[in-house]
Amino acid sequence: MKRVVAKVIVTPKPVVNDPQGLTVKQGLATLGFREVEDVRVGKYIEVSLEAENMSEARERVEAMCRQLLANHVIEDFRFEIDHEGQHRK
Amino acid sequence: MKRVVAKVIVTPKPVVNDPQGLTVKQGLATLGFREVEDVRVGKYIEVSLEAENMSEARERVEAMCRQLLANHVIEDFRFEIDHEGQHRK
Repeated sequence: MKRVVAKVIVTPKPVVNDPQGLTVKQGLATLGFREVEDVRVGKYIEVSLEAENMSEARERVEAMCRQLLANHVIEDFRFEIDHEGQHRK
Repeated sequence: MKRVVAKVIVTPKPVVNDPQGLTVKQGLATLGFREVEDVRVGKYIEVSLEAENMSEARERVEAMCRQLLANHVIEDFRFEIDHEGQHRK
């Protein structure tokens, strides 16, 4: 068993409204960042787990995304898996 | 002026409690993902903006992070900047 870290990014689908992103965009404009054209806000999730190998890790993390981390109706997800040594703490 | 996309990741600092991460970890355990040892939850923010060049874009996005996107007391941030063509929509 080795310890790996999955870095998961969950984003609202392009067709879905993102009121949080709109609010951030307006906040940036108020601060003078008028060059900003669009903001989308999603989630970043770092999962540390034990796995036999990278292939098993990918399969398990994919299952976690489908079952809990992302709502597939309104969100997309993607992830990469690193060895523990590359984990940013 | 060219259009670039900044992909910003904001994470709670390692010393900061992350109750949301703990809740996700417990949820995963309930679903049978008992190999999960730690979960940290942060934000992922995609900012589309106009900039003269990559160097200016980096400077502006760094300023956005410091002024609004991240709370430097409890959060770290990092980002990368892509040309519009690489923007995932």
